Amino acid sequence: MNAKFLKLRSHIEEVVSLTDEEWKVISQSFEYRTLKKHQFLIQQGGTVDCEFWIIEGIVKAYFIDEKGKEHILQFAMENSWVSDHYAFQYDLPADLNLDCLENSEFFCLSKENRERMCFQFPKMANFFRIKGLYGYVNLQKRILSFLTQTAEERYERLLDRKPELIQRVPKKLLAAYLGVSRETLSRLKA
Amino acid sequence: MNAKFLKLRSHIEEVVSLTDEEWKVISQSFEYRTLKKHQFLIQQGGTVDCEFWIIEGIVKAYFIDEKGKEHILQFAMENSWVSDHYAFQYDLPADLNLDCLENSEFFCLSKENRERMCFQFPKMANFFRIKGLYGYVNLQKRILSFLTQTAEERYERLLDRKPELIQRVPKKLLAAYLGVSRETLSRLKA
Repeated sequence: MNAKFLKLRSHIEEVVSLTDEEWKVISQSFEYRTLKKHQFLIQQGGTVDCEFWIIEGIVKAYFIDEKGKEHILQFAMENSWVSDHYAFQYDLPADLNLDCLENSEFFCLSKENRERMCFQFPKMANFFRIKGLYGYVNLQKRILSFLTQTAEERYERLLDRKPELIQRVPKKLLAAYLGVSRETLSRLKA
Repeated sequence: MNAKFLKLRSHIEEVVSLTDEEWKVISQSFEYRTLKKHQFLIQQGGTVDCEFWIIEGIVKAYFIDEKGKEHILQFAMENSWVSDHYAFQYDLPADLNLDCLENSEFFCLSKENRERMCFQFPKMANFFRIKGLYGYVNLQKRILSFLTQTAEERYERLLDRKPELIQRVPKKLLAAYLGVSRETLSRLKA
């Protein structure tokens, strides 16, 4: 468990420095959780109790529309934060489903713990502010990629940025995420 | 000018409370700027010196691809923050163009001033963290709307959320933003 906590501390310290004293308090806000492949972190319409930092595993964030069609927003891997951030912030029923594509391990941060931490340790507010900016920019890039790139260019960009994802996520899901047919994806992978 | 500053203070105090003493210091970080219709706040490839809070006016944020085609990411109105947030944060050339659709007024916040403010007044870090979350969620909703809604549904959602925008933005630009032809938009507006 100690190694997992050290990994989280390193992740936070990429953005803000912490003293051992601060870390001792901050680390107590995180709760360890494991889920098996196919289990849900969050289910559409359900409650959102935490933000999750992925220690190990892959999470698929998706939305099911009224016709039952699945739309994939994100695959999140190790060292990423994942949640239905809006529902979490405003105590609303989840719009999204988050399920595990592999057996996965998480550190969970409740809203109460996060807000207390951010006001007690301002540097943590800055950490989440800057992390949020990354997330914002990634979404903006995804919108631009839908507007400006071909399927082939989107695949190449993903291969360039997250080669490991392409190894670990089933082809069918990757194709749905990229907005291409499975046949097109197989051609691209060849 | 006092009334404009009071408007900014109210906007910030929707999220965090400030004392008069704090506001006196914080308000000094903002620089007032005006631009005429069609002038640029940010130009693709140029530098991004500030984040901008819109006092009056409308800003169009867009990207021009290699073929010269324009892709509209956002229309921002009064009380909104706008910038090329990624380029601003990382001192990179801008990916986006931001130009004014009307004569506009802004409060500008440089990175130096913003970082000093956030570390001096932790509540401001929390303000920007929570504002960033709104922006994140809006982008996420836009991605979902592209994936799940028809042009008609996207138009109705916009009419529902921002009726004023539809009055103030030229039809041609609205159509481009919604991803529909101008004819379709005219039919929808009828």
